Amino acid sequence: MARKRIVAIGGSDAGISAALRARELDPDSEVTVVVADAYPNFSICGIPYYVSGEVGHWSDLAHRTLADLKATGMQVRTDTLATGIDVASKRLAVRDADGRTEELPYDALIIGTGAVSVRPPIEGLTGPGALGPQDGVHLLHSMGDTFEVMQSIAERRPRSAVVIGAGYIGLEMAEALTTRGLRVTQIEALPEVLPTVDPELGALVHAELTSHGVEVMTGTQVTEIARSHSGETPHVRAAGPDGTTFTQTADLVLVVVGVHPDTKLVTTAGAKLGAKGAIDVDEHMRTSLPDVYAAGDCAVTHHRLLGKTWLPLGTTAHKQGRIAGENALGGYRWFAGSLGTQVVKVFDLVAARTGLRDHEARAAARDWAPATTGSRPDDHKAYYPGATPISIRVTGDTSSGLLLGAQLVGRLGAEISKRVDTYATALFHGMPVDGLNELDLSYTPPLGSPWDAVQVAAQAWMSEHQLDVQRRMLRTP
Amino acid sequence: MARKRIVAIGGSDAGISAALRARELDPDSEVTVVVADAYPNFSICGIPYYVSGEVGHWSDLAHRTLADLKATGMQVRTDTLATGIDVASKRLAVRDADGRTEELPYDALIIGTGAVSVRPPIEGLTGPGALGPQDGVHLLHSMGDTFEVMQSIAERRPRSAVVIGAGYIGLEMAEALTTRGLRVTQIEALPEVLPTVDPELGALVHAELTSHGVEVMTGTQVTEIARSHSGETPHVRAAGPDGTTFTQTADLVLVVVGVHPDTKLVTTAGAKLGAKGAIDVDEHMRTSLPDVYAAGDCAVTHHRLLGKTWLPLGTTAHKQGRIAGENALGGYRWFAGSLGTQVVKVFDLVAARTGLRDHEARAAARDWAPATTGSRPDDHKAYYPGATPISIRVTGDTSSGLLLGAQLVGRLGAEISKRVDTYATALFHGMPVDGLNELDLSYTPPLGSPWDAVQVAAQAWMSEHQLDVQRRMLRTP
Repeated sequence: MARKRIVAIGGSDAGISAALRARELDPDSEVTVVVADAYPNFSICGIPYYVSGEVGHWSDLAHRTLADLKATGMQVRTDTLATGIDVASKRLAVRDADGRTEELPYDALIIGTGAVSVRPPIEGLTGPGALGPQDGVHLLHSMGDTFEVMQSIAERRPRSAVVIGAGYIGLEMAEALTTRGLRVTQIEALPEVLPTVDPELGALVHAELTSHGVEVMTGTQVTEIARSHSGETPHVRAAGPDGTTFTQTADLVLVVVGVHPDTKLVTTAGAKLGAKGAIDVDEHMRTSLPDVYAAGDCAVTHHRLLGKTWLPLGTTAHKQGRIAGENALGGYRWFAGSLGTQVVKVFDLVAARTGLRDHEARAAARDWAPATTGSRPDDHKAYYPGATPISIRVTGDTSSGLLLGAQLVGRLGAEISKRVDTYATALFHGMPVDGLNELDLSYTPPLGSPWDAVQVAAQAWMSEHQLDVQRRMLRTP
Repeated sequence: MARKRIVAIGGSDAGISAALRARELDPDSEVTVVVADAYPNFSICGIPYYVSGEVGHWSDLAHRTLADLKATGMQVRTDTLATGIDVASKRLAVRDADGRTEELPYDALIIGTGAVSVRPPIEGLTGPGALGPQDGVHLLHSMGDTFEVMQSIAERRPRSAVVIGAGYIGLEMAEALTTRGLRVTQIEALPEVLPTVDPELGALVHAELTSHGVEVMTGTQVTEIARSHSGETPHVRAAGPDGTTFTQTADLVLVVVGVHPDTKLVTTAGAKLGAKGAIDVDEHMRTSLPDVYAAGDCAVTHHRLLGKTWLPLGTTAHKQGRIAGENALGGYRWFAGSLGTQVVKVFDLVAARTGLRDHEARAAARDWAPATTGSRPDDHKAYYPGATPISIRVTGDTSSGLLLGAQLVGRLGAEISKRVDTYATALFHGMPVDGLNELDLSYTPPLGSPWDAVQVAAQAWMSEHQLDVQRRMLRTP
């Protein structure tokens, strides 16, 4: 077998996972990873914990060091930009930091260019004269962004911050800056924080933020970010839910309202795009270009309940990358699909979800009659010290009885993140809600109940939506 | 439909679950639970935490109060002994505390008599003149046993204890008595404590006991328990692994070496017994006697990997009871089967297992070639404070690649008990080990990794046992 030449673009989860898998499966393969910055295999999800001070040094955020990566036999070209794909001759043009260009021949190319921050159309954030890091105004997605934030913190010694956006990163950054001692105002355009869960659960996160001193403004639209008269401190102008406008001054402004796929390179090469402008791939992670694969945040996501969508998550990027790496070598793996399983810690609270919420299931082009039931079972037996309730919302299809999704919010220590995994594993297998009661889950009084909280919540759904069906199934004598 | 008369014998998990389910499904049903003692629906698993002092009052151990139970519309007859079943006329003879007898007619009868403590053939524990609670020597399984232990503690003010047996209850009682301030010696006949997990993992539990001051003697056989000359303090005579005998004095001796099914009542009525002398039932929980069901520790256990066995667990009793209650009403539910999922907290360590270990899989009459791989992935990203390794042993079938079992030991807080649930749910669905890598599990740096520990352990198994298979599947160009 000839030595296969695999080139991966992108030093984050997808590109590195692909390269690792290729090297693991074929130690003869020639694997090169082209990395635009100097930080291959960094944990982007860890940035808030570096900003907070909980991670001592930025280099600790690396999943693996450059030396670890090279020890697997792969080549890593840092500070190297991929500038063009010659699909016909199977060559990738690159340019290094010194401006030197080169063409890398490949047998298979894997695109893992990831996503870039959304810059929302707020006055003062776009166009000429837009505010930026020099003004204490930051987007935050890459290690480069992180260093700029840290420089602002070091130089400006901010005492207050406005965080625009209350999704995962926004919430984690509100916590991180509070932990650093800043007074934080969090502004979210939607009616409740953490809009990826039902508002009943978002309200619990909202209360947790408030109880830790974060000023939370929901239903509030930022209209402008401007320099102050002195030019030192940015001002944020916004309109509240009742339409009243106000101005909030802060030493630091963070704009974290989402990301979009980075697809410049493949678009130029003629690749087909799909959902939300992400690179279209099949379940084998093949793009429309021959021998070109894509994985991670730049590519569409196959969702087990929704079909093709775009749902950028690190866990998915790892899986897709691993499959792309195997298939690039001649494997024939399928990506089994995402369920959108997510978890976030906000101070001492943990919020998680998997599968679909009511309105998402309703919007899906499927024959479902979704319904959601909330319950609050304890994380472990109440008689053992420290028991806390978990707010669980189970969504199921009332016509088939199938589980469609689950959302959980509970205290840190209540094993929320691994409880959502039980739902995720059940969903993976298309279980009915009632099927959860058949699962042989572990129990000891300090850590659970004979029916685990995930089962109690399933029973609550069944009682509300299927008890009459179950009664009709009894044989009368 | 005529009012169905359901009688359940036993106030523990199985009997009460059956009664609750019957009342839930058919509010017209007449449901009576016959309870031998005064403690219906008590959490036997919680006894160690009452003895330790962590549970303030014994009544807190009730899953539900008697009033809660009666509010569901069931009748509960406490201090009432079931003395005989007249299968032909469908009547249960009972006798109350005052000696009054009565015959209860039933349409369906559910046996949930549970298990009783094994009294091992140790000199001084059996025969006339056997030592008992009055000597500070206790078996421990029921609430009655618990009160006797507490009386011994109150009256004897023990400063030292010997716990014979290092299974789940033995370990929990060693912790409980240590928490109360006693000096505890734990004696186990087998070579390592917690013999339900591999010795590599049992050794971690052993070290945890030792680090908390418990003197652990493994491979040690107790031969005699005797009164001291003064008659005050029992002596335990035992033989160590090298055959040397020794005597240990203790103010309190606990003998917790297991349980066996309580089947007297149905044996007399002619019911067929099965594995380990437990009542034989089919998947519908039907005994060999017409309209007589059995559930919980008194009945055999259908195991998804082993077929019929006997594996008494509270979680299983709840499930079996619920099914028996439904089927007694005319339902047609199957018990989906146990996987033997178990978890125990020992001081600050948690040990869990599900499915089969290597030797158990080998002993099963199946076409498996089992192998086990150990790994030690972190519970969450190492850069976030507080990460601890989890010792995981994954067992799989090297010929089919199927997952057969998993064992985990890690620190309290490392979400061990809900991580074993992911394995249990995967096992329930007959997943291959590699399939774990397809599961969409949750991730945030403070609580997990992009590949969760359960997946890292699966990858370790795959690397050791299936990499060559995967390599052969690559298509050479």
